[in-house]
Amino acid sequence: MNWKEAAGRIRPVSPKWMETAWERLDSLTKPRRSLGLLEWLAARYVAVREERHPRITGKGVYVFAGDHGVTAEGVSAYPQEVTSLMVRNFLAGGAGINVLAQCAGAEVHVVDVGMASPLPDAEGLLQKNVKRGTGNIAVAPAMTRGEAERAVDVGVEMALSAHEKGLSILMTGDMGIGNTTPSAALFAALLPAAPEDVTGKGTGLDDDGLSHKIGVVEKAVRRAAADSEDPMSVLASLGGLEIAAICGLCLGGAALRRAVFVDGFISSAGALAAMKINPHVSDYLFFSHCSVEKGHRLFFDKYGLRPLLDLDLRLGEGTGAAIAVQILEDAVKIYNEMATFADMGIDPGA
Amino acid sequence: MNWKEAAGRIRPVSPKWMETAWERLDSLTKPRRSLGLLEWLAARYVAVREERHPRITGKGVYVFAGDHGVTAEGVSAYPQEVTSLMVRNFLAGGAGINVLAQCAGAEVHVVDVGMASPLPDAEGLLQKNVKRGTGNIAVAPAMTRGEAERAVDVGVEMALSAHEKGLSILMTGDMGIGNTTPSAALFAALLPAAPEDVTGKGTGLDDDGLSHKIGVVEKAVRRAAADSEDPMSVLASLGGLEIAAICGLCLGGAALRRAVFVDGFISSAGALAAMKINPHVSDYLFFSHCSVEKGHRLFFDKYGLRPLLDLDLRLGEGTGAAIAVQILEDAVKIYNEMATFADMGIDPGA
Repeated sequence: MNWKEAAGRIRPVSPKWMETAWERLDSLTKPRRSLGLLEWLAARYVAVREERHPRITGKGVYVFAGDHGVTAEGVSAYPQEVTSLMVRNFLAGGAGINVLAQCAGAEVHVVDVGMASPLPDAEGLLQKNVKRGTGNIAVAPAMTRGEAERAVDVGVEMALSAHEKGLSILMTGDMGIGNTTPSAALFAALLPAAPEDVTGKGTGLDDDGLSHKIGVVEKAVRRAAADSEDPMSVLASLGGLEIAAICGLCLGGAALRRAVFVDGFISSAGALAAMKINPHVSDYLFFSHCSVEKGHRLFFDKYGLRPLLDLDLRLGEGTGAAIAVQILEDAVKIYNEMATFADMGIDPGA
Repeated sequence: MNWKEAAGRIRPVSPKWMETAWERLDSLTKPRRSLGLLEWLAARYVAVREERHPRITGKGVYVFAGDHGVTAEGVSAYPQEVTSLMVRNFLAGGAGINVLAQCAGAEVHVVDVGMASPLPDAEGLLQKNVKRGTGNIAVAPAMTRGEAERAVDVGVEMALSAHEKGLSILMTGDMGIGNTTPSAALFAALLPAAPEDVTGKGTGLDDDGLSHKIGVVEKAVRRAAADSEDPMSVLASLGGLEIAAICGLCLGGAALRRAVFVDGFISSAGALAAMKINPHVSDYLFFSHCSVEKGHRLFFDKYGLRPLLDLDLRLGEGTGAAIAVQILEDAVKIYNEMATFADMGIDPGA
C-alpha cells in the first residue's frame, strides 16, 4: 500500500457505530455524559475500530528522525548533531519518549527517514532514509516531490507493520533539530496563516532569534507559493522528511482503522498535510495536546479540534501522545467495564 | 491527630527541595523545561516528599458519602436514595471510580460519613457516620460545629490510615445526591463570590431548575453570613459531611507530607475550606481538573491555581483525580529515569 492507495481507502467513521457507542455510554451508572471527553474518546474509538467492545491490543509510537538544511539560517538553539545524539538516546532507552512510552505500555520504534548522518551501526534503528537532510527551505525546496512521496510512504509502511503486529493505536513522534521552522512554514502555507502567527521560539530562541526565524519562514513560504494547491508539493517544498513520514503514518493508520495519536506542533503539521490529502483522515486522529509553540492553538481553532491536554509541553518525540493515550485507555476501560443502570436496578431518571 | 493538630503541623514545602528537583530536571536530556507542567509536578512532588528520588509507594482514593437535607428544595435531578445505591455500586466495583482507580493502580476506600440511611451490612464500607444527612441549608445549619469537626476528623483519620499503610498519594472523592448545592454555597461564602457565579446545573437541571437552585444558595448564604469569619463554622452551616471529610483528608495529607489529588467541584469546596484553615495546605494539593460546573474556574483563577486536566468531567467520586494522578506517575518516572546530558556526553547548550 502506497500513500495514494492509503488515502483512497480512508472512509469517514460510521455515525451508526457512534450511536451504538453512545447508547452503551448512556446506560452506564453515571449521570448522562458526565465523563465528558472520556465518553467522546470511547465513542470515537468504537467507531474507529467498528467493534462493540473494542480492546486496545497494543500501542506503538513511531519516532521519525530527520534533519533540516534550514538550520544553516541559525533558526535553532541546538546544532544539527544533536539529532543523531538523541536518536542514540532513544535507542538506549534514556529519552523522555522511552520513559513515557513505558508508562503507556507502548512500543517505541525509531526510524531514520531523513537524518543527515547515517548511523549504520545503531542497533534497533529502522533504516528508511530517503534523503540525508532537507535542502535549506529559505532558498530551495526541502526535497523533490518524489522524495516527499517516498517519505510519506515510509509512514504508511510503519502503519502497515503496526497493523500486522496487531497494534490498535499508533502514536506519532518526531526528532529533528530545526523542525519547528518547516512546521511553521507548512502551517503558514496550508492553513493558511501569516508566518508571524504560526512561528514560535522552538526550543530556546530569544526575541531577536524569533524575529529572524519569522523572516526565514516568510521567505520560504513566498518561495513555495506556486505549489500551494497540492499538499504533496507543499510538503516537498517546505516540509521535513520526518514530517512527511508522520503524514504517512496518519494516512496509513486511518486506512487501516487504527487510532492515531498525534503528538505536538511538528506532528500536527504532518497531520494537517494528511488532512489536506484526505479530510476524512481526521476521524481517526486524536490530538494529544496543545503545545506552547505559537500557532498550534490557531490550527486547532481553525479546524474546531480540541486537544486532550494542555500541559505546556514542547519536547516532541511523541511524549505528549504517550501521556494522552493513557486517557484513551481509561475511556475504553470505562466503556467496557462500568456497571449499567440495569445491572444496578437504578432508574437512570432525568 | 485531630484536625487542629493536623492544621498546626502543616509547613510550606521547602524552596530548597524545589531547587534540588529543578537542578535534576534541567540536567535531563531535553530542552530546558520542555516537559512543562510535568516538570513542575515532579518538582512539587520531590518537595512534598523531601526525597531526592521519591517513589510512589501507593495511592488511595477516599470516597466520602453524605446526604443533603437541601434536596427537599428540589435542587437535584436524582432522588436521595441514589446515594446508597451508588455506594453499593462502589463496593461492588462497578462505578466509574472503580474502573479509573484500577487504571491508576489505586485502592478505593468508601466511607459513610454522612449518609441518611445506614448500610450496616455493606461489606467494605467504612462506618464513620457522624450524622444521618445534613439539615436543609436553605433554612437551617447543615450540622453543628461539633459535627463538622468530627466529620473533618474522619478525613484526618483516613489520611493517617493511608500514612500507616505507606501510601504516598491520597485522592479525594465524593458521593452525595444534591452536593453541588452546599459546594456552591461554600464557594459563595468562602471565596467569596455571588451565588449566581458559582452555582451550576449539577447533574441535570434545566434553566428553571438552575434559577431555583441559585435562589436556594442565596438563601443559605444569607442565613450563614454571621459565621463567615471562621471556616469551620461556615462548613458547619453550609457544608456537607463528605465535604468536611474531604477538608480533613487535605489537612491530614498535608500534615503527613502526602500529595493530595483534589478531584472536582465538590472536592475543591472541601479543599478551599482546608486552605482557609491553613493556607499552606495548598502546597500539598494537586488540582486534578476543571469541572464543567460553574464556579470551578472562578476558584482556580482567584487562587492562581492551574488544574491539570480540562475534560468536561462532572461525575465526582474521585474520577478526575484518578485520571490526573497518572500524569504525576509519568512525571515522577521522568524525574527518576530519564538520562542526563552527562550520561549522553551532550552539552546542554542554550
